[in-house]
This record gives sequence, C-alpha cells and structure tokens, in this order.
Amino acid sequence: MIPVDPERFLSDLHELRGFGASGVGKGVVRPGYSDPDIAAREWLAAKYGAAGLEPRIDPMGSVWGLAEGKSLLVGSHSDSQPEGGWLDGALGVICGLELARAAREGGGPAVSAVSFQDEEGRFGVTTGSRVWSGATSLDEADKLRDPTGVTLAEARARMAHLAGDFVDPARFSGFVECHIEQGPWLDEAGEAVGVVTDIVGIRDMRITFGGQQNHAGTTPMHRRRDALQAMLKFQTLIAERFRNVVTPQSVWTSGHVDVHPGAHSIVPGRCSFSMQWRDGDKERLARMEEIIRDTAREVAETGGFELSYSGLVGLDPVPMDAGMQAALGEAAEAVAPGRWRRMQSGALHDAASVGRLMPVSMLFVPSIDGISHAFAEDTAEDDLVTGLKVLAGAVEKMAG
Amino acid sequence: MIPVDPERFLSDLHELRGFGASGVGKGVVRPGYSDPDIAAREWLAAKYGAAGLEPRIDPMGSVWGLAEGKSLLVGSHSDSQPEGGWLDGALGVICGLELARAAREGGGPAVSAVSFQDEEGRFGVTTGSRVWSGATSLDEADKLRDPTGVTLAEARARMAHLAGDFVDPARFSGFVECHIEQGPWLDEAGEAVGVVTDIVGIRDMRITFGGQQNHAGTTPMHRRRDALQAMLKFQTLIAERFRNVVTPQSVWTSGHVDVHPGAHSIVPGRCSFSMQWRDGDKERLARMEEIIRDTAREVAETGGFELSYSGLVGLDPVPMDAGMQAALGEAAEAVAPGRWRRMQSGALHDAASVGRLMPVSMLFVPSIDGISHAFAEDTAEDDLVTGLKVLAGAVEKMAG
Repeated sequence: MIPVDPERFLSDLHELRGFGASGVGKGVVRPGYSDPDIAAREWLAAKYGAAGLEPRIDPMGSVWGLAEGKSLLVGSHSDSQPEGGWLDGALGVICGLELARAAREGGGPAVSAVSFQDEEGRFGVTTGSRVWSGATSLDEADKLRDPTGVTLAEARARMAHLAGDFVDPARFSGFVECHIEQGPWLDEAGEAVGVVTDIVGIRDMRITFGGQQNHAGTTPMHRRRDALQAMLKFQTLIAERFRNVVTPQSVWTSGHVDVHPGAHSIVPGRCSFSMQWRDGDKERLARMEEIIRDTAREVAETGGFELSYSGLVGLDPVPMDAGMQAALGEAAEAVAPGRWRRMQSGALHDAASVGRLMPVSMLFVPSIDGISHAFAEDTAEDDLVTGLKVLAGAVEKMAG
Repeated sequence: MIPVDPERFLSDLHELRGFGASGVGKGVVRPGYSDPDIAAREWLAAKYGAAGLEPRIDPMGSVWGLAEGKSLLVGSHSDSQPEGGWLDGALGVICGLELARAAREGGGPAVSAVSFQDEEGRFGVTTGSRVWSGATSLDEADKLRDPTGVTLAEARARMAHLAGDFVDPARFSGFVECHIEQGPWLDEAGEAVGVVTDIVGIRDMRITFGGQQNHAGTTPMHRRRDALQAMLKFQTLIAERFRNVVTPQSVWTSGHVDVHPGAHSIVPGRCSFSMQWRDGDKERLARMEEIIRDTAREVAETGGFELSYSGLVGLDPVPMDAGMQAALGEAAEAVAPGRWRRMQSGALHDAASVGRLMPVSMLFVPSIDGISHAFAEDTAEDDLVTGLKVLAGAVEKMAG
C-alpha cells in the first residue's frame, strides 16, 4: 500500500480550511475565483511543487500537480458553495495531494493530482472539468454569468497571471475522486465507505399551468380555474404514480414555484414550477418523464388549464469503471471489513465530466447527519483517514 | 316612481367611460388620483351642479352632490382598477346622479349622490369611504403608500385645490349602492337583479411551514422535510375538511406563495403562503379558522415542520338593512317579476364602510360571464336600465 501519512493529510486539510474559514463551526466561504479561492489555489500549487510534482494552473483556474509519464489522476475541487463546509471538494483534493506525494516518496505508481475550478457552479456546475473535458468550449463558457452579472471571462481574468496551458488528458489512465457522501445512508448504517457504482442522471424542466385569474371573493369555488390548485393536483398524482416505478434512490423535487399574480385576493391565473428528477437508470428517468407529461396533460385537460413546458435539461447517468470499482471494493474490504457498501451518487461531481475522457471512479465517506452545503457539514476524522487508506490500497491495484 | 331617464343615464355612463377609456373593448384605466380620475371627478361635480345639487369634493377626493335637508344617499365610486372595466363603481355613481336629478325634477324625495375615492385600493381598499366613516383617520391614511411608493398625502395634494370640507353624515338617512355582481350567479340563472343580504366577512393571514433545506440529489424522499410538500398536504386536507362546513357561497384562496430558497436543486426549507377565506356567517368564518389552525398543526406535527402565522386580518360580515332590502325586493318584483333573487356580496364595497354610520343596502345587476376587474367586464344595457328602475322604485319606498 502507498505509505500515506494520516497526520500530514489531516494537517493539510485543516490548512486548506483556513482559506475562507467562516468562523461558524467548520464553515468555509470560498466560491470559485473569490480571493480565498485564488489564494488556496496558489497554496495548492506550491504544495504540489514541494511534493515533486509539476504544478500547473490551466486557463480555467484548475490546479494540477503532474507526475511524469502516464499516471492515475486523483482529485476533486477546492472551491466551495457561497456558504459551505470544510470537506466538500477539499477532501478529495487533499487525498490527491497526499496520494501523489506518498506515491513519489514510497516509489509507488505514478499519481497526478488536481483541483478543478467552479465545481459548485458559480457559473454553472462542474464548470472547470466541463471545459477541460470538452463538454463546453472555453468561448461558450466565457459568456456565462454569475448571479450578480459577472462573466466567467471577467472572473478568469483575475487569475490569468497564474495560468498556463490546458493539460493533455492523454497523460492519464483514469480518475479517482473521493468525496463526502452529502447524504445520510452511510452515517445511518454506521458504515465507513461507499464505493460508487454510478452518478445518477438528472432531468430538469419547468411546468406551467395557465388558469383564469379572478376575484377571490366573487368567484365561486366550482367556477375557478386556480393554477395553484392545478399544481397541487399534479404533485399529489405524481407522488401516487411514481410509487410503482421508483426505487429508494430515486428523487424528485419542485424547488422553485412562481404563483401569478401573487396577491392574497386574486385567484392565481398562472403557476410555474420546477420539476427535477434523478435516478441511476436512464430507462427509469424516461419512464418518470412519461408519467410527468401524462399527468400534467391529464390535470390540464380535466381542469381546463393551459399547459406548457420549458426545455428539458438532461444529464445521463455516468457509470463508474468496473475495474476501478473492484479495486476500491477490495481495498475497502481490507481496510474496513464489512463496513462498506456499493452505492449511487445522487449528486453531480467532476468525475461525471472527466468520464467523457477516461475511466472514472468515486469513493464516499460518511456525512454526519447527512448534512452538506452548510456550515454544519462534517465527518469524523477516523472516517476521513479510512477513506484515504482505501484509496491508497485501491490506487496500487488500479496501477496494476 | 321617480321619473328616471334611461337614455340620459346610459349617455352619462358612456361619457364617464371616456375618462381613461383604454381602447381595448370597454376597458377603463382610471385609478384613484390619476389624471383621468381627477378629470372624471371634476366632470361629475359639474353634473351634480347642473342637476341642482350642491357639489362638494371632500379632502379625500370623494365627490358629493348634496340635496337640501335630510336625504337618502345613492352612489358608489368612479375610480377603477389599474386595468378595469367601464361599470365597476361607475354604474352606481351614475345611478346616484340620475336618481338625485330625476327626484329633483319630478318632485320626489330628497336624494343625494356620491362617488367615493379609491375604492379599488391604490392605497388600501375603500379608502375614501373608510376615512369618511371614521374607520381610519386621515392622518393614518396619509401614510399609506401605493405599490410605487407614493403616499396618499402626496396623491391627495394633486386635487387639494378642488377640496372643501368633509360632509356631515347626519345629513343622510341611509345609503344605497348599485353594483355589477362581479360573479356569475345572476348571469348563469338569467336573472336581472340581486338584492344583497349582506357583504361577506373576510379572514386573511399568512401561514409558514419551516422544514429542512437540503440537497435535491442526495436527500432521499423518506428523509425530506420539504416545506412545499407540507403546504400541499395542508391544501389537500383543507379542501376535504371544509366540505362539511361550507356553503356554495363560501370561498377560500391561497393567492401568494413563497418557496424558499427557490432553487431547482434544493429541497425547499420554508414555504410561506396566504390563506384568505370569506363567508357571510361570522360563526362559519370562525369554524373555518379552527379547521385551518388544526390542520396546519396536524401537518406540522406529523411531518416535523415548524409552523408560524402572521397576524389575522378580519373584516366581519356587514348585514344590509332589512327595511331597505324589503323595499328593493318589492321594487324588483314589480320591475322584473320572478327574475331576481336575494344574495350575498362576496366582494367588499363602500357600503361596508358606510354601514358604520347609517343603514345601508345594495343592488346587483348581472356581470356577463361573471367577469370583472378586467377590460372584458360588461352587462347588457337592458339589465343596467332594469337596475336603475328597481332603484327608482325602492328609493321612493325607502323615503316614504
């Protein structure tokens, strides 16, 4: 096994937390291209250099520590949510640093490390890895704006003096990303690690019911075409109809709702809402879409509502490489016998973008109470070290 | 019967429509204190003067045509919704003008006329009649702001050069208001007029469910405390539980909904929504409130949600004077035998404010397709004239 140093690993992880530490618990405020983010990336490049890797910051601001020759790539992202925790992304980045460093020191297989830029989506989601993987061109990406109107081009310019070329993907044999689970399953079961089987696919669209705006005092209930009530009916029917189709891993969410005109004394004439669903199985995603469209049409036809959709955004499930999964499973069984499972990732990660270029895999460690994207996010340090050791064992197997 | 002149009445009604005529159908854009509203009020004061009444504009901008001695007051309001129809308010105002004029000409009982200011609520609802009735002081009212931030004091100043004193309520023996129904009942039944029994009471509050904001990908359905879903559950239960309590005249509406934080990929942590209900029976309003509070508490306790309320706004039902109702009923049977009914008003009207000071009554004429507060609002001219004739018969009985 690559001779990783748990103390040094934890020390680096805490040092990275210092960039943007919020002062609330272990919270971190380090969004992509913010001052703390850029400072953290300079710090990381220096760490890579000190470990004998070739440091490189690419035009997107992703930071690389390159081993010589063909190597395995290990990493994640070091930017955070606008109000985030200390582990999301950072854990995988410091795992990459420690594995690449320990592998060099111990004569192990060649390991390179990376921290992608803007995984948390100031300008989208997984923006840095998407551009690197070719899913989005740099020109297209440059036009993206953050919620305050700043363009990605403007944000990138803030660290242009640090940037070199993009890294050739052909240098890497595969990518491993370690991440906190961001969900409750491992913590609930008292398990130490999860070997990810796939990153679930997402479908996302907006549905709008158009009814009849009217006086809330003089319009009798039987004469109303209340668009909010159409949405309620839709949600109730969807919950019933999904029952025979979904698994415990399937999720669906309406997170944004707009009721028009939005006055206490007016029967809503229009209700527009987001509908997002996720599942690891492309067929099931399609079946859910069919149910959604059939149900919306039925509600509209029955109640006399107009129905319209925004365009559908779809990201297909990304399967993790079978050989890499096997290596992670064997290492997990060695390090934490009987305390690991195979599981899906319900969240999107950089590995999904990198999967366009090479075999990818992911390892999860528990999130206490399933909390993430919040200052309260945390994981026991024993579990962090267990994750690092599983990776150390697996990387050796992956390298052959 | 007071010798009303239907041609003159219709001609004046169309002339009033000219102030703020929208150009879309018979639409009118004449909000309180707008240029067309002030011009219409000057025109009306001149009409009152020409009819031998004493014209007066009070400090709120309400326009009066005063008969000598103790008189019956007939009128409504001539301001419109930001996008309104030609009849809402205007019909009652021109009924008052024609009745006061015809009564003078024909030696009938003394009738005064009025057009209250801002019934449509640029600064509240029934603002002019509320201030006149003493429900709100002028000082308090002056601080009210319209949606663009203009204060009532600033708006009033625009017509201060036209204003005299407030009118002494002791001059009037009672108030009669004619109005379009703004609902579908008369039109559906092919009836000509409705004698209003009472103006329904309103209860209005905001309910907030607090759940757990979370990741929409990694939070399994069984672990969610989705605040939008709490609202949906509440609405479904309310619809079931109201069934045994309400009448066909009872209404309830959630017209404003705020889902926090309102992102596609986040399980809503908070859902705040308006709940307004109306009924003619105070006891029933209280029973509905009990069901609302019990149901909200049950949804909160069952699902682990926090529950909070805004303060409750309540306007009690206002009964119409029994003697005046009887007079309107007798006149209706004489003018339109078998084609009238007694009914509640689900909408608020100036009569509700004036009821603080004296006996009040209301007469409805049909709204085609139940439409109001919209450019498409209309009523057949035959029905308008029938309403005028019923009033003419009733006013004589009320005075005698």
